[in-house]
Amino acid sequence: MAYLNDNFLKLKAGYLFPEIARRVKVFCDANPETARRVIRCGIGDVTEPLPAAVTAALHKAVDEMATRATFRGYGPEQGYDFLRSAIAQNDFRAKGLDVSDDEIFVSDGSKCDCGNILDILGHKNQIAISDPVYPVYVDTNVMAGHTGDADESGAYGGLTYLPCTPANGFIPEPPKHQVDVVYLCSPNNPTGAVATRAQLQAWVDYALKHRAVILFDAAYEAYISDPALPRSIYEIPGARECAIEFRSFSKNGGFTGVRCAFTVVPKSLQAQTSSGEFKPLHPLWNRRMSTKFNGVSYIIQRAAEALYTPEGKAQVAALIEHYMGNARVLVAGAKAARLTVYGGVNAPYIWAQTPAGVTSWQAFDKILGDANVVITPGSGFGSKGEGYFRISSFNSRANAEEVAKRLQQLKW
Amino acid sequence: MAYLNDNFLKLKAGYLFPEIARRVKVFCDANPETARRVIRCGIGDVTEPLPAAVTAALHKAVDEMATRATFRGYGPEQGYDFLRSAIAQNDFRAKGLDVSDDEIFVSDGSKCDCGNILDILGHKNQIAISDPVYPVYVDTNVMAGHTGDADESGAYGGLTYLPCTPANGFIPEPPKHQVDVVYLCSPNNPTGAVATRAQLQAWVDYALKHRAVILFDAAYEAYISDPALPRSIYEIPGARECAIEFRSFSKNGGFTGVRCAFTVVPKSLQAQTSSGEFKPLHPLWNRRMSTKFNGVSYIIQRAAEALYTPEGKAQVAALIEHYMGNARVLVAGAKAARLTVYGGVNAPYIWAQTPAGVTSWQAFDKILGDANVVITPGSGFGSKGEGYFRISSFNSRANAEEVAKRLQQLKW
Repeated sequence: MAYLNDNFLKLKAGYLFPEIARRVKVFCDANPETARRVIRCGIGDVTEPLPAAVTAALHKAVDEMATRATFRGYGPEQGYDFLRSAIAQNDFRAKGLDVSDDEIFVSDGSKCDCGNILDILGHKNQIAISDPVYPVYVDTNVMAGHTGDADESGAYGGLTYLPCTPANGFIPEPPKHQVDVVYLCSPNNPTGAVATRAQLQAWVDYALKHRAVILFDAAYEAYISDPALPRSIYEIPGARECAIEFRSFSKNGGFTGVRCAFTVVPKSLQAQTSSGEFKPLHPLWNRRMSTKFNGVSYIIQRAAEALYTPEGKAQVAALIEHYMGNARVLVAGAKAARLTVYGGVNAPYIWAQTPAGVTSWQAFDKILGDANVVITPGSGFGSKGEGYFRISSFNSRANAEEVAKRLQQLKW
Repeated sequence: MAYLNDNFLKLKAGYLFPEIARRVKVFCDANPETARRVIRCGIGDVTEPLPAAVTAALHKAVDEMATRATFRGYGPEQGYDFLRSAIAQNDFRAKGLDVSDDEIFVSDGSKCDCGNILDILGHKNQIAISDPVYPVYVDTNVMAGHTGDADESGAYGGLTYLPCTPANGFIPEPPKHQVDVVYLCSPNNPTGAVATRAQLQAWVDYALKHRAVILFDAAYEAYISDPALPRSIYEIPGARECAIEFRSFSKNGGFTGVRCAFTVVPKSLQAQTSSGEFKPLHPLWNRRMSTKFNGVSYIIQRAAEALYTPEGKAQVAALIEHYMGNARVLVAGAKAARLTVYGGVNAPYIWAQTPAGVTSWQAFDKILGDANVVITPGSGFGSKGEGYFRISSFNSRANAEEVAKRLQQLKW
């Protein structure tokens, strides 16, 4: 008799964003006349069209696939050399960071990579996760059997939660005890906080001392404008010995519907076998990708490559400036509405405190019902997210201005 | 101290196809003047350009992504309704098979799906695998910790191997004892054998009796021309209660470099929890895809949809006819070379016996060195593949004819 994976049964209700989509649909179905007014600042999805350099590269690659001489079948599972090289050169070596082409693994999404990375790690690791946090880190560990059941607050037994609060600027300090694998996300989703160089150095020092592995999610690095803030964990000495970095083209090139991302696995990064021997993780990830993945579509890798051309870089910069302009409008609007807000300066997310006594989902329902704006309830990101909600800057300027206005009109 | 997944260390050498690529590179580097003569019939990769209906759909979708009003960001993780519906309608319901749109899960590849499906199954299942077999089924079970170490023949402890030999026409019978999960692939990679309706019925009967789950890989169903042979496991009564089917656009639409596939998980399929309760697998796969995947690129889903238009269907039929014409040429050539051959009739693969006393890798090296043709050594697919090699029909007609000629010139 076939067994299913019981760990899935520990998962709470729906994954956050499908649950939001469900509530929005219920509201719109019940209020068809209001449905057109609804502005979505919930899921962090880009709204602006693809950069012209990207669409030109896509058309060109499609034409190549239409002709026998230039047609491409299976590509390398790790990504084409042209893209791995463009990434390593532009995102790392041009900035003085030591990353080789073959330490870059091209994938179809950071969400996939953040989940799949558990394939190469053992089951005995003590896992540390920020709270609030991107739900994928938690849920993939639940599925992999690394947790017990969830308690009433939604916290799973067996995980080490690192509270992120105004007191620590939403960047957790390393714990006093041993953890083996830690997820860090900077700029942070959902809080919009960005770790300083000193904060990341403390984590790298901790990881080197405890031989822990840092899983560093830098999907939003393009939104950092302050030159003092690190955009890669590899800006921190020692990180090549303890950190894997996840990057994405979703939020810089607007690839949420195109699907391309990459993971950096330094060859100098090691972890231990159950007999206590240390071995590099790079060959394991390489094998995992060779065996369970078949590479990203050729035409999409050409699209990603185009982001590194001079035109592509200028067009990405304009997109970032657009969304960060929205962030400034939203931060100002939320403050004018007397909300306490964090983030939104070097990150596209604004983390707002709900008025006293209002829960995150109550705020969600109220803002949807009265202001016809979709936000993300903070409690969906973890128990320490209760009492907050996330506003996304991914929208048109007109919508951002409208949301800022409606927030001020809201009667709590 | 972080632990790695020790199970990876049990994996033998390289994954088969990277190892072939390595040997070909060594040969070509050492013989640059001969390198141009090399014809690749190793990896089963298509060679002909994308159908015109597909490239037209791709261009159109790229244009949509270039304009704000028609731009698409994150899509549904399970695939867009337009594609799920086209698949369910054309591949199943139009043929009288009961499959609903929301039982279709669109992905970026069958290789990924065949590996990822283990996420939703428990660790206590007794796994049965044909021998020879597509290496991904085995290797992903090794990675998941479902096996012991490999013996000298490459067989892993803990798996139930089902020998496929000329005696059973390379289609294994159900075992006498209990297995919980069984992989079946028809048309078969690598042997080119196709299961009859009676053979599949025997497996479905077995699975229903033993409450086992059949993982049915139908990536090559488009190559079946004999109307008596089943193209889907769901043609067999009872299969909706015991089988998951994997399909791909790689080998019909030529999508090996485009990346799109799908998996069918019937809602009526159940498996047991460790406490012995039976629950449907559909919600688990839905949750797995929602949490660890972000959908296939919008433009690529539009490309796949185009395969179901009248023009797309005609162009796919022409591609299949081209490759099966190659298969006829290669079968005739191999027979003229006095090789014993199987397959190549309702499948694009020809399974040839090596001359007496010649191992699979010896045949590989000989055929590469003397005929400058790349084939796939049968032993790379399992111990029962020793003494065979696979010839792929994915090539130009001129190359297929040249390979047929060179095989006849070969002195063993």
